[in-house]
Amino acid sequence: MKTVVVTRNPRADLALVDRFAPLGVSTVHEASGRAPNLMKPSLRPAWPGAAVAGCAVTVLAQPGDNWMLHVAVEQCQKGDILVVACTTDCTDGMFGDLLATSLQARGVRGLVIDAGVRDVATLREMGFPVWSRAISARGTVKATLGAVNVPVVCAGAAVRPGDIVVADDDGVVIVPAADIATTLAAAEKRQANEGEKRAKLAAGVLGLDLYGMRPALEKAGLRYVETLEE
Amino acid sequence: MKTVVVTRNPRADLALVDRFAPLGVSTVHEASGRAPNLMKPSLRPAWPGAAVAGCAVTVLAQPGDNWMLHVAVEQCQKGDILVVACTTDCTDGMFGDLLATSLQARGVRGLVIDAGVRDVATLREMGFPVWSRAISARGTVKATLGAVNVPVVCAGAAVRPGDIVVADDDGVVIVPAADIATTLAAAEKRQANEGEKRAKLAAGVLGLDLYGMRPALEKAGLRYVETLEE
Amino acid sequence: MKTVVVTRNPRADLALVDRFAPLGVSTVHEASGRAPNLMKPSLRPAWPGAAVAGCAVTVLAQPGDNWMLHVAVEQCQKGDILVVACTTDCTDGMFGDLLATSLQARGVRGLVIDAGVRDVATLREMGFPVWSRAISARGTVKATLGAVNVPVVCAGAAVRPGDIVVADDDGVVIVPAADIATTLAAAEKRQANEGEKRAKLAAGVLGLDLYGMRPALEKAGLRYVETLEE
Amino acid sequence: MKTVVVTRNPRADLALVDRFAPLGVSTVHEASGRAPNLMKPSLRPAWPGAAVAGCAVTVLAQPGDNWMLHVAVEQCQKGDILVVACTTDCTDGMFGDLLATSLQARGVRGLVIDAGVRDVATLREMGFPVWSRAISARGTVKATLGAVNVPVVCAGAAVRPGDIVVADDDGVVIVPAADIATTLAAAEKRQANEGEKRAKLAAGVLGLDLYGMRPALEKAGLRYVETLEE
Amino acid sequence: MKTVVVTRNPRADLALVDRFAPLGVSTVHEASGRAPNLMKPSLRPAWPGAAVAGCAVTVLAQPGDNWMLHVAVEQCQKGDILVVACTTDCTDGMFGDLLATSLQARGVRGLVIDAGVRDVATLREMGFPVWSRAISARGTVKATLGAVNVPVVCAGAAVRPGDIVVADDDGVVIVPAADIATTLAAAEKRQANEGEKRAKLAAGVLGLDLYGMRPALEKAGLRYVETLEE
Amino acid sequence: MKTVVVTRNPRADLALVDRFAPLGVSTVHEASGRAPNLMKPSLRPAWPGAAVAGCAVTVLAQPGDNWMLHVAVEQCQKGDILVVACTTDCTDGMFGDLLATSLQARGVRGLVIDAGVRDVATLREMGFPVWSRAISARGTVKATLGAVNVPVVCAGAAVRPGDIVVADDDGVVIVPAADIATTLAAAEKRQANEGEKRAKLAAGVLGLDLYGMRPALEKAGLRYVETLEE
Repeated sequence: MKTVVVTRNPRADLALVDRFAPLGVSTVHEASGRAPNLMKPSLRPAWPGAAVAGCAVTVLAQPGDNWMLHVAVEQCQKGDILVVACTTDCTDGMFGDLLATSLQARGVRGLVIDAGVRDVATLREMGFPVWSRAISARGTVKATLGAVNVPVVCAGAAVRPGDIVVADDDGVVIVPAADIATTLAAAEKRQANEGEKRAKLAAGVLGLDLYGMRPALEKAGLRYVETLEE
Repeated sequence: MKTVVVTRNPRADLALVDRFAPLGVSTVHEASGRAPNLMKPSLRPAWPGAAVAGCAVTVLAQPGDNWMLHVAVEQCQKGDILVVACTTDCTDGMFGDLLATSLQARGVRGLVIDAGVRDVATLREMGFPVWSRAISARGTVKATLGAVNVPVVCAGAAVRPGDIVVADDDGVVIVPAADIATTLAAAEKRQANEGEKRAKLAAGVLGLDLYGMRPALEKAGLRYVETLEE
Repeated sequence: MKTVVVTRNPRADLALVDRFAPLGVSTVHEASGRAPNLMKPSLRPAWPGAAVAGCAVTVLAQPGDNWMLHVAVEQCQKGDILVVACTTDCTDGMFGDLLATSLQARGVRGLVIDAGVRDVATLREMGFPVWSRAISARGTVKATLGAVNVPVVCAGAAVRPGDIVVADDDGVVIVPAADIATTLAAAEKRQANEGEKRAKLAAGVLGLDLYGMRPALEKAGLRYVETLEE
Repeated sequence: MKTVVVTRNPRADLALVDRFAPLGVSTVHEASGRAPNLMKPSLRPAWPGAAVAGCAVTVLAQPGDNWMLHVAVEQCQKGDILVVACTTDCTDGMFGDLLATSLQARGVRGLVIDAGVRDVATLREMGFPVWSRAISARGTVKATLGAVNVPVVCAGAAVRPGDIVVADDDGVVIVPAADIATTLAAAEKRQANEGEKRAKLAAGVLGLDLYGMRPALEKAGLRYVETLEE
Repeated sequence: MKTVVVTRNPRADLALVDRFAPLGVSTVHEASGRAPNLMKPSLRPAWPGAAVAGCAVTVLAQPGDNWMLHVAVEQCQKGDILVVACTTDCTDGMFGDLLATSLQARGVRGLVIDAGVRDVATLREMGFPVWSRAISARGTVKATLGAVNVPVVCAGAAVRPGDIVVADDDGVVIVPAADIATTLAAAEKRQANEGEKRAKLAAGVLGLDLYGMRPALEKAGLRYVETLEE
Repeated sequence: MKTVVVTRNPRADLALVDRFAPLGVSTVHEASGRAPNLMKPSLRPAWPGAAVAGCAVTVLAQPGDNWMLHVAVEQCQKGDILVVACTTDCTDGMFGDLLATSLQARGVRGLVIDAGVRDVATLREMGFPVWSRAISARGTVKATLGAVNVPVVCAGAAVRPGDIVVADDDGVVIVPAADIATTLAAAEKRQANEGEKRAKLAAGVLGLDLYGMRPALEKAGLRYVETLEE
């Protein structure tokens, strides 16, 4: 591992970034063609109800060592989301209210970490959103270097600095920098369509008819029977 | 697997079904003699506080393929709960707000699924209760048939169409159609007794005395000592 | 295993115990030198927001058998927290609202159990806090003896009767009876320092400067680069 | 749960049963239309290389209580396989070399248990095959009744007494008594075809051509490109 | 945590220790009254077939940091087994063939570690037995102190320096120094009895009769029926 | 996801590749600076003792759908290793003896798959090595496209087509194409040093002295005491 801090982090236009949060993780994931950019469901929000989007500042840390998180704060600016991967599985509480205070002071919108966090009652009061794999009071050392703003694999998804991170109660999805425009267009179109569909479904129209599924089901061989012959 | 939809699903009298929800999962489970009808604790509510009972409409689906859920909606009616088993372990988000809108329009009371769900913030706003093994934005395909209203094993419990499903913050329990009357009688009796017991315990009576446990403990050899001789 | 109930349980002065709850689990864990006294993060609160401290009354129970919990109630008094370990892994619902009523009537402040609990909706309404490894309606038998007030290993932490238990949304930490005074002093000092640090960090001072980390990072070989040479 | 022992257990003709073992679990599972009759992969052989088929004698046991296994031995005969489900998750060592000696003396061909086993070095020496979810020396009590020869759900599969159990290094599959003839015919046909296919594949014929997959892939939209345009 | 190395480690007479290995983990565990001295079944042998007993030299290490293992080697002597606990969950490969070479040179009989190990092919060739929770090539740092020969909790069992460790294919059990004589006597008596029982069971005597279980089963209410009335 | 097959896969010189297998996964991982290129320890060999190195042909597959594996065979040549990632967690048996026969006919050296495999007894007999996260007979469909020779994340490691894969009993490590020469040099140097070290350690030299650790331990504050003052 190169123990470096990359200081020039490309970032998307915040006006574009801000249009992702209201779309939500599931719609953005669908709009990106279900690319393998979704983090594992083991990552959960520390408190429910937050929905954010921001530019990724990435950290590769040693397990149980949060030295690089302190280093990363300085590289963050308004509109960022800090994404922390570990070199191996870890559930220690690598992040708490003091680091959150620092990030909030710089306009950072949230934290995504494939490890544990602590002080969650305070994080909820501060309104600082966090997605983590565990909640743990286990403390950490500051002994070994890692890296900031290098490509990482976090909770099963590849993340590069400057990618857009979208996170809500459904989880965390990454939009690679190169795909921002096309994904945004597809997601907004999808969301517009959903309103219309929702109204029809609420009125009792069946999805089988709305989506025209009956011919394909018949062709695939689905049979309707009154009782199950055994 | 037979790829069929069974259209004639026997259902219990809703007046009976409605008496199960206020009893709660733990009391119903106890009243059924702790039969192996309880789903695994890996199934959790997507949002806290819901408590429902309904008639099971069952689905056996391929992992990551929600085609059969769309098919199942048409087989549902007022008072039902949709129970979805997968042919293998799956955490994908096989159910979201549009399917919930369809089910709610038909009077369905909730979903129990041994897989993932998404759009959970919207499900909470809609008041549509869901018990699932995961929350995940991971999308699904509509490519392979399954079955509707066949016997399934869901989260470790055997479920037949028309069985009663009771679900709350404690989990999900199944009452087989043949056992409804006896289980209901036992559960209501148990609940009536509990009020009386609770009052005594709150007044400081010890369970050791209330349940008459002291002789059995003595016979089993329990010793009271002032300090632990090592 | 000795099947005994030890009736003379040493307890700390409640005036001291009461000073631990507002400090919180993470601060107490740090103040105790990160001793291996923290329970595993698999133990989670049954409902969010509680923060308590109390004297440990310990139970060693057979899995799926809550006989000893009934026995332990009699050994509890105001200011205690019941700590239940099992002889093997268990997720059954070994504790519910009736036992909670008994404990609350005696002034017990909460339950920590390396197994499952049930009736969680009622526990939340009662305001009785519980930390457990699972929520499960699965019922238990009363067939085999265990022990009360013996040393146990619960969720990876060694607990002796009379140790102080501190629990909140971050988890559960144990303060051995012999370390109460030193840990309390260290934790209160730590908390006092944190207020000052928080104000500086909120004002934008970097942790790198506040904690004087730059020289050590440089010595360890951290390099700052504008772009990542590959 | 009914605490009964059903003594008249229907069994298939052993001549038919014996034709299942050489077919193997994967082939039998495929031949049964991938019905949900396969146990979860958490069940593993205690030692590698065994491959057996037999008639199911079922046990429903309390976790950590092997009383019913002793009861079940008497109900076993030559050609049987004992299938043990627990009322809740359990990894205790509920089975060891003495019970294996008893079963082997009666001609029983193996054990399938959704719990733990012990004395595995001796089991391997005895050549008595076991599939379990864990290996654990943890001892058990004999305190609470269960049932023998009732329908059970074991490791996610429904098993009825008299069903055929097939087990090898790939896992455990159940053939319901009603499906024995059709499954056997389909599995033997499948196995015969596989020999021919294997020879062609070993000679370098591609599966794409042997199975005629190219048109369907093209229709589904698969594109071949020399390099990945990003 | 006190960062100390305790150099005067009490040890049992090796003539006594050597009598434990042939008894095996399951028999020793039973003979100790099923005390909570058994490690979790997540600890597995890195290669099958080894069976050892020795005196515990304990290590408390930081996760992903094997500095203290190097320190501990010097404290080991002939007949010891090294027992390594981590301050938090860890699966990194903290031990490999070079450390094994050092330990083997000092007459150490094996390693028990609640973390990962590597070079397992070489360990098997060397005949150096290891019980671990994972196999992983993940390397470790040497950055933070821990402790040697302090009481630890390893894989759920409390271990003090000088306790006897018994390990085989069934897992790992601890015999506290104070219980060596009584446990050894009970285990050898138990083993002597088992030979006799095994011969009777192999001859077809049922455990139900050999252990005299029929009256207790009848009293508990077990019913024998020819078919299951539903 | 782009549903493409990339047909022009850069590959390293086989003479270089062949030098990696005898070095072993742990040494190669260390030599690459412990870069985050190691797959998770959940990936285990289907049978012990194999040690291979080869060029990665990558597959991104839908869970429970092995259509793309059939497609990938055609893209493989002598010296390759097939690396299969899934778009979501999967334990189904996506690979068996017929696909292995095809790959072996083309000179492929092994399979790495973050899903399940089956026919493991036959794979062992064939000598075809496989690393997988599960063994399962669960069958798969051929319904949805994926991709071949695109960058994937497999078991937590990023893999690009043409990277070198090294796999043995310790797990699986990836050497990026750009780092082959430097990693090989560092690994061979490391291995040469290890022989010398092993001889010294076997002769009883302590690692504390061989690696010169004593001053750093003293500086870090390690204390040696005869007994543990409590």
